[in-house]
Amino acid sequence: MADKKMVRDITSMDEDFAQWYTDIVKKAELASYSGVRGCMIVRPYGTALWENIRNSLDSRFKALGHENVMMPMFIPESLLQREKDHVEGFAPEVAWVTHGGEEKLNERLCVRPTSETVFCEHYADIIHSYRDLPKLYNQWCSVVRWEKTTRPFLRTMEFFWQEGHTMHETAEEAMIETRQMLDVYADFCEKELAIPVIKGKKTDKEKFAGAEATYTIEAMMHDGKALQSGTSHYFGDGFSRAFNIQFTGRDNKQEYPHQTSWGMSTRIIGAIIMTHGDDNGLVLPPAVAPVQVEVIPIATHKEGVLEKANELKDRLSKVCRAHLDDSDNSAGWKFAQCEMRGIPLRVEIGPKDMAENKCVVVRRDNYEKITVSLDELEQRIPELLKAVHDGLYNKALARRQSMTYDATDMDAMIDTATNKPGLIRAMWCGELECEEALKEKAGVSSRCMPFDNNEPIADTCVCCGKPAKHLTYWGKAY
Amino acid sequence: MADKKMVRDITSMDEDFAQWYTDIVKKAELASYSGVRGCMIVRPYGTALWENIRNSLDSRFKALGHENVMMPMFIPESLLQREKDHVEGFAPEVAWVTHGGEEKLNERLCVRPTSETVFCEHYADIIHSYRDLPKLYNQWCSVVRWEKTTRPFLRTMEFFWQEGHTMHETAEEAMIETRQMLDVYADFCEKELAIPVIKGKKTDKEKFAGAEATYTIEAMMHDGKALQSGTSHYFGDGFSRAFNIQFTGRDNKQEYPHQTSWGMSTRIIGAIIMTHGDDNGLVLPPAVAPVQVEVIPIATHKEGVLEKANELKDRLSKVCRAHLDDSDNSAGWKFAQCEMRGIPLRVEIGPKDMAENKCVVVRRDNYEKITVSLDELEQRIPELLKAVHDGLYNKALARRQSMTYDATDMDAMIDTATNKPGLIRAMWCGELECEEALKEKAGVSSRCMPFDNNEPIADTCVCCGKPAKHLTYWGKAY
Repeated sequence: MADKKMVRDITSMDEDFAQWYTDIVKKAELASYSGVRGCMIVRPYGTALWENIRNSLDSRFKALGHENVMMPMFIPESLLQREKDHVEGFAPEVAWVTHGGEEKLNERLCVRPTSETVFCEHYADIIHSYRDLPKLYNQWCSVVRWEKTTRPFLRTMEFFWQEGHTMHETAEEAMIETRQMLDVYADFCEKELAIPVIKGKKTDKEKFAGAEATYTIEAMMHDGKALQSGTSHYFGDGFSRAFNIQFTGRDNKQEYPHQTSWGMSTRIIGAIIMTHGDDNGLVLPPAVAPVQVEVIPIATHKEGVLEKANELKDRLSKVCRAHLDDSDNSAGWKFAQCEMRGIPLRVEIGPKDMAENKCVVVRRDNYEKITVSLDELEQRIPELLKAVHDGLYNKALARRQSMTYDATDMDAMIDTATNKPGLIRAMWCGELECEEALKEKAGVSSRCMPFDNNEPIADTCVCCGKPAKHLTYWGKAY
Repeated sequence: MADKKMVRDITSMDEDFAQWYTDIVKKAELASYSGVRGCMIVRPYGTALWENIRNSLDSRFKALGHENVMMPMFIPESLLQREKDHVEGFAPEVAWVTHGGEEKLNERLCVRPTSETVFCEHYADIIHSYRDLPKLYNQWCSVVRWEKTTRPFLRTMEFFWQEGHTMHETAEEAMIETRQMLDVYADFCEKELAIPVIKGKKTDKEKFAGAEATYTIEAMMHDGKALQSGTSHYFGDGFSRAFNIQFTGRDNKQEYPHQTSWGMSTRIIGAIIMTHGDDNGLVLPPAVAPVQVEVIPIATHKEGVLEKANELKDRLSKVCRAHLDDSDNSAGWKFAQCEMRGIPLRVEIGPKDMAENKCVVVRRDNYEKITVSLDELEQRIPELLKAVHDGLYNKALARRQSMTYDATDMDAMIDTATNKPGLIRAMWCGELECEEALKEKAGVSSRCMPFDNNEPIADTCVCCGKPAKHLTYWGKAY
């Protein structure tokens, strides 16, 4: 029988946040390292979590008319080079296939770091008339970027994601799509993952290679660092021109379509861990938790307890994803295991509870114990799952609010960035020089220029003192 | 407005079966070629079909206790080499990554052609005790094999599949799993895809590189050729020994676990096309068809027709996957389009039908027209979908039976193989020499030694005349 200590044995997040993160990934059995540097094995529990995320996002995409496709993983070098900014951004970090079997290839193939180029080549084939537009495609796949330092979920050489690629008749439609998909991500994060996010625009320095504009949702982790949780890009007609994608417009003239792309990746699992987790392990938002309720029998040797626990599991399975831990481990070990795996609710049932026709429900988010009549089980458990979601969201939002600071001059900026983990709101002139100076002097990067709550807090740039253009979020980031 | 001829313009299957196949893949918009030799783009309709196949198989796997994982796509060369037979089988046909960004790798990485090796490396990490067994893992991914000649779905350099990899305490349990998963594939093919299959064992020559035994399901295509539609492999403890995977058994001794793997791929879409398709296009089995019923309004300019068609679509959406073609194309063009895409049923509704409170339903499998009262729509349509499934299955089974021949001597074997497309049942001594002679002289390969209906049809080997060991299916194959 396993020892309770073995489950709990993780570093405290206050002591060493990075180690705490790694411990959780390992102990909750989300992922482990593989034999290839920087590539992870996503284990069954992590995969089940990702499948729930994927299915939920996929339904949202399809409800908006998007269709899935499956594109090749290889991109010929010449194709990658077609759009100048794009190749500059990605070529330094791609994996190159040079041989097929014994044969040396005439042209190297890269393993896709992202698929704008292959989508564009295909769109040039299938878009001829305005009647062919819009094209609203998405694919679920893995991509590869040759990263120097890696951490499971947060930054891996191979990672799993979806990438939407759409083509539109007009710039306006493409811009609406770009914003719409950012809203989808934001809504998904807040409603399903209980992660509050800040929607905004990236600076030119931080935007996607080849994009005209990149929109982002930024979340704050437990340690005050930001995590870019999803991005949506507006390309204008830059790729269309580079790939010669043209269509006959309503006025019978040849036109270039306008393009977007948008993606969310397994990184979001890192965001879940670092937003909700605590020193007892993972804490999963109910909407995507592989197991929402764990039923744990107390005193399993007593007559009828296991049977009753099984009955509760069966009843609960009709209203949520329920699981029964009928292993021969001690109840204490099961509690710890259930906490480590971040299961939103545990239901304890023992002889005393049975006699009183009740069970004890323990919330993972705040450890509150609630006595629930067995007659009300199917009604109360979904309510409590909703309460856990709300509890997680409100706690994360309160934390972000308490760890967000305003700075109106450089001294305050440096002082806050140095001494207070969190995000800093400051006015910015829009110049790259100031953005670079803030990185160098305060160690912060621009996170986004927010769409909401962006009233000026000063007239001048926090760095150069010239007239300010944008309220901007700054911080350290994953 | 598109011309009806444009939709129908495909080669007749009697005239040129290969061209007919390619025309359907293109005209039904299942897939198209990409800029990388041998890699296909699976278009929205093909992807939706694959998603239905995937979801159905995935549910079956999970119901049997299997869990999904996501493994790295790269395999270090040294890892691929760990099992001798396996590397000999796969090394000649893998894609090699030699550079990451600007940096030359110390060790080449291959893009997985299959993942036994990475699963084994992981299993060595996580299997320690008999309590850790069985491990029942599966993954959905794409794999790469450097093929010389390729055809969409049937043989592509990159293809999509699932690969199950399981580890068991005993040889017997692993053998049961191997057979169980073959049964899952067979049942799926027959019950969902309406494709009758022959279950059997592969000869040593045809078995998977590194396996002790390979089981297969073989289907017969319209042209009489066989298509291996799914395989399940028993590995014994060969990989376990090569990868040093050991566990403490119930008797406290160190033991090697026994392994299986099993896979089904996008090839099965090729099987669907070539089993059910006809000269008007694709014919999809209802269970996996992205659209099961297309509602086509007749005389859309007449008052109330479009509204009524939309109402029928809404009603049907509650009992099946229904779609309304409300485009401005002619009804005739819509019929042709609906046939090309293989939609199992079309529902025609016009002013006359409305007056009589009925609609006309046309079956894709046999073009039968059925008048259905609108009062019985929700009841009759699911019945008719079932009828289409049964019709497809029975037609395919009858074709296979009529194109399966027995041969008891070499003259008959060569004559049948030369003049009659189809499968040939013949007795075999079990020697490689005879298998190779049959390939050379009759142009046939062994398909399988069937589990059912395998009573001897002669005492001696069809080739050498020595005592026969196995009734075996022979034929030309994809």
